[in-house]
Amino acid sequence: MPKKYQNRKAEMKKPWAGRFKEKTADIVEDFTESVSFDWRLWPYDIEGSIAHARMLARQGIIKRDEANTIIEGLREIAGEIASGRFRWDRKLEDVHMNIETALTRKVGAVGGKLHTARSRNDQVALDTRLYLREETRAVTRLLTKLGKVLLRLAKKHINTAMPGYTHLQRAQPVSFSQHLLAYVEMLQRDRERLEDALKRINTLPLGACALAGTTLPTDRTYLARLLKFERIAENSMDAVSDRDFAVEFLSSGAILMMHLSRMAEELVLWSTDEFSFIELPDAYTTGSSIMPQKKNPDVAELIRGKTGRVYGSLVSLLTIMKGLPLTYNRDMQEDKEPLFDTVDTLKGVLGMLVALLPRIKVRKDRLEKALHGGYMLATDLAEYLVLRGLPFRDAHDATGRIVRHAVEKGVALRELSLEEMRGFSPLIDEDVFEVLKVEDSLRRRKSRGGTSPDEVKRQIQRLEKSI
Amino acid sequence: MPKKYQNRKAEMKKPWAGRFKEKTADIVEDFTESVSFDWRLWPYDIEGSIAHARMLARQGIIKRDEANTIIEGLREIAGEIASGRFRWDRKLEDVHMNIETALTRKVGAVGGKLHTARSRNDQVALDTRLYLREETRAVTRLLTKLGKVLLRLAKKHINTAMPGYTHLQRAQPVSFSQHLLAYVEMLQRDRERLEDALKRINTLPLGACALAGTTLPTDRTYLARLLKFERIAENSMDAVSDRDFAVEFLSSGAILMMHLSRMAEELVLWSTDEFSFIELPDAYTTGSSIMPQKKNPDVAELIRGKTGRVYGSLVSLLTIMKGLPLTYNRDMQEDKEPLFDTVDTLKGVLGMLVALLPRIKVRKDRLEKALHGGYMLATDLAEYLVLRGLPFRDAHDATGRIVRHAVEKGVALRELSLEEMRGFSPLIDEDVFEVLKVEDSLRRRKSRGGTSPDEVKRQIQRLEKSI
Amino acid sequence: MPKKYQNRKAEMKKPWAGRFKEKTADIVEDFTESVSFDWRLWPYDIEGSIAHARMLARQGIIKRDEANTIIEGLREIAGEIASGRFRWDRKLEDVHMNIETALTRKVGAVGGKLHTARSRNDQVALDTRLYLREETRAVTRLLTKLGKVLLRLAKKHINTAMPGYTHLQRAQPVSFSQHLLAYVEMLQRDRERLEDALKRINTLPLGACALAGTTLPTDRTYLARLLKFERIAENSMDAVSDRDFAVEFLSSGAILMMHLSRMAEELVLWSTDEFSFIELPDAYTTGSSIMPQKKNPDVAELIRGKTGRVYGSLVSLLTIMKGLPLTYNRDMQEDKEPLFDTVDTLKGVLGMLVALLPRIKVRKDRLEKALHGGYMLATDLAEYLVLRGLPFRDAHDATGRIVRHAVEKGVALRELSLEEMRGFSPLIDEDVFEVLKVEDSLRRRKSRGGTSPDEVKRQIQRLEKSI
Amino acid sequence: MPKKYQNRKAEMKKPWAGRFKEKTADIVEDFTESVSFDWRLWPYDIEGSIAHARMLARQGIIKRDEANTIIEGLREIAGEIASGRFRWDRKLEDVHMNIETALTRKVGAVGGKLHTARSRNDQVALDTRLYLREETRAVTRLLTKLGKVLLRLAKKHINTAMPGYTHLQRAQPVSFSQHLLAYVEMLQRDRERLEDALKRINTLPLGACALAGTTLPTDRTYLARLLKFERIAENSMDAVSDRDFAVEFLSSGAILMMHLSRMAEELVLWSTDEFSFIELPDAYTTGSSIMPQKKNPDVAELIRGKTGRVYGSLVSLLTIMKGLPLTYNRDMQEDKEPLFDTVDTLKGVLGMLVALLPRIKVRKDRLEKALHGGYMLATDLAEYLVLRGLPFRDAHDATGRIVRHAVEKGVALRELSLEEMRGFSPLIDEDVFEVLKVEDSLRRRKSRGGTSPDEVKRQIQRLEKSI
Repeated sequence: MPKKYQNRKAEMKKPWAGRFKEKTADIVEDFTESVSFDWRLWPYDIEGSIAHARMLARQGIIKRDEANTIIEGLREIAGEIASGRFRWDRKLEDVHMNIETALTRKVGAVGGKLHTARSRNDQVALDTRLYLREETRAVTRLLTKLGKVLLRLAKKHINTAMPGYTHLQRAQPVSFSQHLLAYVEMLQRDRERLEDALKRINTLPLGACALAGTTLPTDRTYLARLLKFERIAENSMDAVSDRDFAVEFLSSGAILMMHLSRMAEELVLWSTDEFSFIELPDAYTTGSSIMPQKKNPDVAELIRGKTGRVYGSLVSLLTIMKGLPLTYNRDMQEDKEPLFDTVDTLKGVLGMLVALLPRIKVRKDRLEKALHGGYMLATDLAEYLVLRGLPFRDAHDATGRIVRHAVEKGVALRELSLEEMRGFSPLIDEDVFEVLKVEDSLRRRKSRGGTSPDEVKRQIQRLEKSI
Repeated sequence: MPKKYQNRKAEMKKPWAGRFKEKTADIVEDFTESVSFDWRLWPYDIEGSIAHARMLARQGIIKRDEANTIIEGLREIAGEIASGRFRWDRKLEDVHMNIETALTRKVGAVGGKLHTARSRNDQVALDTRLYLREETRAVTRLLTKLGKVLLRLAKKHINTAMPGYTHLQRAQPVSFSQHLLAYVEMLQRDRERLEDALKRINTLPLGACALAGTTLPTDRTYLARLLKFERIAENSMDAVSDRDFAVEFLSSGAILMMHLSRMAEELVLWSTDEFSFIELPDAYTTGSSIMPQKKNPDVAELIRGKTGRVYGSLVSLLTIMKGLPLTYNRDMQEDKEPLFDTVDTLKGVLGMLVALLPRIKVRKDRLEKALHGGYMLATDLAEYLVLRGLPFRDAHDATGRIVRHAVEKGVALRELSLEEMRGFSPLIDEDVFEVLKVEDSLRRRKSRGGTSPDEVKRQIQRLEKSI
Repeated sequence: MPKKYQNRKAEMKKPWAGRFKEKTADIVEDFTESVSFDWRLWPYDIEGSIAHARMLARQGIIKRDEANTIIEGLREIAGEIASGRFRWDRKLEDVHMNIETALTRKVGAVGGKLHTARSRNDQVALDTRLYLREETRAVTRLLTKLGKVLLRLAKKHINTAMPGYTHLQRAQPVSFSQHLLAYVEMLQRDRERLEDALKRINTLPLGACALAGTTLPTDRTYLARLLKFERIAENSMDAVSDRDFAVEFLSSGAILMMHLSRMAEELVLWSTDEFSFIELPDAYTTGSSIMPQKKNPDVAELIRGKTGRVYGSLVSLLTIMKGLPLTYNRDMQEDKEPLFDTVDTLKGVLGMLVALLPRIKVRKDRLEKALHGGYMLATDLAEYLVLRGLPFRDAHDATGRIVRHAVEKGVALRELSLEEMRGFSPLIDEDVFEVLKVEDSLRRRKSRGGTSPDEVKRQIQRLEKSI
Repeated sequence: MPKKYQNRKAEMKKPWAGRFKEKTADIVEDFTESVSFDWRLWPYDIEGSIAHARMLARQGIIKRDEANTIIEGLREIAGEIASGRFRWDRKLEDVHMNIETALTRKVGAVGGKLHTARSRNDQVALDTRLYLREETRAVTRLLTKLGKVLLRLAKKHINTAMPGYTHLQRAQPVSFSQHLLAYVEMLQRDRERLEDALKRINTLPLGACALAGTTLPTDRTYLARLLKFERIAENSMDAVSDRDFAVEFLSSGAILMMHLSRMAEELVLWSTDEFSFIELPDAYTTGSSIMPQKKNPDVAELIRGKTGRVYGSLVSLLTIMKGLPLTYNRDMQEDKEPLFDTVDTLKGVLGMLVALLPRIKVRKDRLEKALHGGYMLATDLAEYLVLRGLPFRDAHDATGRIVRHAVEKGVALRELSLEEMRGFSPLIDEDVFEVLKVEDSLRRRKSRGGTSPDEVKRQIQRLEKSI
């Protein structure tokens, strides 16, 4: 966090004051300043400026020793900011002008050469892209970490059977691993999406200047090399108008949060007295100020809730950009807070799950109990009839009627007698009782991607490679 | 802004620690704490606690001198916070526990009596409602101020004619006042909507306790009187589950921003070289870091852009609340930041416009110029034909053909000869040229709510009373 | 649903064709037409036109017998539409032009007088408001119906105890009625919000004409009386620019769906094998195409899911209106589909719940079972200690430690011995066992709005009056 | 559009009726049916079923001649649907059951074998993916077409200068082509994003069955080959829970509409009397029902407005999926309408622009006029000073003061005398007047991506290759 902002009394002159008769009104300065949030971009602003100074020198636009003076000054400023000694000034509007002004104060008039062939329009696009490139990679790494945590957990539970649900109704037995691996698949897609987005994030806007390029002999290819950009924004007007990279990150983030909200919902459900499929460690739950017995899954609830803020940020930026004529419009300054907030949220939430998941206790006794006594093997029974030649629809119907009979009698499928079952289909034989063993149901679902232990192992092996 | 947060090493015990075997993990404390943003609720938290203590004493649940000790302690704490001497502690989770802990430290074990017959569930609902009640009134007052600013401007421009637009095409002449008054109407609806919302905001949740009320003999009617609530939340489960008041404020705010985004769009348009209907004062515009001639309407652009953040906040909270089972869920902690941000945004934006609008310079010369040479009086011409008995559809058609003829000839309507016009309709007479005077067009539109000076004056008078 | 649209070959002339050299391109006609969805407005369009014709005659703008001919023609058209004989034509753009053209075809040139002193800009605003006024009332009536259904259910279950939840963890025993009444409170607020919105919906825009009023001597007060509007839009530019009424309806609808999504979530939860608090009737559930045993709470799931479409419609309209300059812009044609869809959704969902809820079976045995064996009376125990003089914080702490002791021992609170409990607080006496009876816990929570039977009855009585 | 739905009186039995005691209530059938919108998926449903039947036969799960009978039946049904002879029935819930029921009616009990080793859960995921794969490609092709239209226009206007804008203020001269090419860049990113999304769309879910795979010996690899899927959903639970592909398409569509809303805004602006940079053809504009002179850019306005519906659809689906536990939940049925609507909207809007843009008339006279008399060459002047050794900041300041001087004098920069300019900087020489020629300004901005004709040509060539 930056040093408390200073509102210097200073007669500070705006860098663009030449054309103006009046000083900017105080209320306008407060309203338009962005340094209170864009100060976070300082490492990227300085990195970009150093590259820009080098390029200017290489192209003979400024002298080599001027560039060196500038670069040295910028590095000193970086040191001051890092150590908390830098004084940010709202009157200087934004991170760019704060740093440039400090530079000129430090190195004299030569500092005024840094902004040659550059505008804040391309500069802020540069800084934001450098920031987002780094943070996208950080989020990606956390996705990998979380994937590994889930894989580790999955490896332990290949043979742990639990009810699989559709419509939150018990449907068919599945492996606890199979359930976990579904989330790994989602996270893999999230990672892929972010990697795709990264191609478009990792594009150099610098050199577009205000909107039209410059009359000075700059070298953007060299800039791209220095700053490790894979692409160059090839149209100057697009370069300063484009916020796709931010929207795309936000929408990838929204989808990621959508996944995590589902996981969080399940953690909450599984922690209820009614399900009790897992137990959360005391250190990862919190209590009530009034009810002494409470132990709440707050962490999961907050993750679910934070989905709202990421969705909201996506809507914010889409709204901001709607209907804006080219090129840069000041509305676009509003892109940063939703972006920063989303980066922080994603990193926080993923880090939290990386820490939490290895600590959950899977209650096999409860999973076991939930498997028995219901009718989750009805599909197995129908497929048993199919293998004996009955069209599936008829098999489904016969089984449905068997289930209804059992429900009305208040017994489990296994508890019906062979005769009773044969009353619904003469194709049923003694070996039906083999089919009605929960234990074997997982094992039998060995279609590709199914929940049989072999398939689960295959999935784990595949994911261990690709993660 | 609060004192920099302290992470005390302290062996601080959580108020709900009794039931727990492990200490809360650090990462969980950081993830779940809310004091870094909910500290803003402190005046309301203290106000609520003082009322609660009084009620407890009045009902004999605590002793009168205990209540006094508590109240005195709370007042001291308020003083410390107001003067920046208070140390907020993230480990204490939220504003409530920070204040209660400070109280007990100050007054001893009796402080532990304050939370009798209260839960953070009803306490945070109380604090948020008290906060929002005050801020809704503040926004309402700013709406009135802005309405007055617009009315003052409107009074000056009753006879200033300008092109009225549909589809951003010049349509019919209107009074500049008529245009401004359209915004006053919108703001009046915004105010009415907020006043309607206030009825539902101004409802006492305290006393619902965790979710089910209490076994202790509390008096919520007395609490409501002390805290000036008009209604009492009559169902304890609803009282702690309900965030309608916040969503409703956000949606009213979104509609308000929708209006201001339209006004901002027009300020931007009117400031272009192409329109040049107004000039913004230098003090309310900003320049470019690269283009020395630029004078940008940043303030209006930012207002337009900030529409995005308010829409986003509304979506956030709607998302958060979707599908939550009763009653309190920790997701709901995420309600505060979008609410605070929206309150700040609305107040900032309205205050900005209150300051800016009186300073805009209306360029009558440009409005005048824009009125002439076009075909904005075509409707007048059609209505002239209607008064001479032609069905409107035929009058419209004849006039349309006259316009097309004039366009092809490259002249204004007025510049056509009587013969030319009679070629399209023999009903046209010499007096048609009276109708084709822009000057008189406003005057003639005297239907209720129309743009004639008399109607505009009537609108102003009506609004001056109701605002 | 309208008769299949006809694309007449006809040399149909656009009513505004006079000024144009080219015919509208086919692709443009398809792209811009709205009759494929706005045909629904026909009853309101005709109602509005009849009132308009009367007003024109009363003011002498058209003759009385002309008005009669027009009105008769319009009534015939209404009959044709109602009976499905009317041919809608996309080439005629919208409901207004379809009807006006049919009128002229029917009654001749006099039909062309209907559009005197009127524009589609104020006409469509009128139609939409008439439509929404009627539908808002319909939704309001359904809210009342649903409220009554819930009240009826609540009256049956005043003494049915169930676990109340916070964080989806069992918190304190509540009455099943208390839980239901929380929803009645929400619905009451929804109704109030819609009634507040209705004030602003119920405002006459007609007479604003294109944007500036008219030069003809219309009487809007008379129009308002004929059409039963409580208010008149007092500024012509605002009258045709304003879509607040639609946004406000959508945001009220979004909040309503937020409530119903919570109820739906609970119906889904309560129908799980794990909770089994209710049973849905077979007629209100559906099965699986593959799993013969499944009985799914699809209705509740769909209600929860439909929350998304209402939220989305709100976002649509907010986005559409963002940054539009005054007055009418064609973007605003896009207001209708989200509005119609939301009206249909709300009515469908409310009607569904009105039918479903009386059919759910409350499983008292399961609720009973869920109440016992946990620690939901811990707050009662703490309050017991408070009544014996212990500060609440200490009482909470002592109780928390007792709970932890019981958890570790694997027993319920009631199963601890007096000695064991006294080990945590000597204030505990033999009468503590009275407090630890679930049966009495409800009865004791008699604070206002609490869950005691008396309070629940009081709530029901109050709601029966106000609903 | 499908044949009008039939509500057959028929004693139609639900395919899952076996387990149920009651018939589904009518209101429930109406509420839950999806065939009124998902009938659109029929070609994909049949394609998928044919592949499934082949696979079943190949694996010996059904007999080869059974498969042939089924396939033949399906093809007949396809023919009936295509020719409008098929009767859709709401009572049969969805497209899947309508087709399967028709099949069984046609081919007898063997039809009941088709649903072996398949669930509607994986079937609907399959159909939606097949649909979206095709439509994504269609949208992509339209993007290419629109890109080409823009490129063609750009090639004509390389040397057409116009004001480039920031903050909607004239900033620097740019080529009209440069402006158009900015949009081509955006569309290229849109295409790339859709192609990235296509990787994830193009994934086979079939074979996941209800959620856990099947006990029958299916071959999903063969299915993938038949249906030309590049990937196979490797986890059965994920396969039926996943709607990422739809959300990702919607978010790519939202970004695309964001771009088109900007283009539409500019078309509207440029068509105003004030800008008059372009003229829209009569055939692509519409008139007013009241104002005979109006010629409105409705098409552009509608495109801008339709941004709202796509944003709204994105929010809908994100909301729907938030917090859903695994695996399939009926909420997910609500994914289709926003998806269909967005596909239709994108195709409609892109097709419209492909038709419209070649018909716009660029008014060079107006662009020319807008270039002169302002101060758009101020940056050129500052860069002139930089080349003479002045630090940019000082050059900016001096130029700013020169501009202010000229503004106050009411003259253009070029109209100042050399002496006047030298009063601000002695570095200015006679050759400054070369710099102050608008004509040359474009030519000089030859930095990579800049607006010089050479750079514009280079961009065009690059894009012609990549498009």
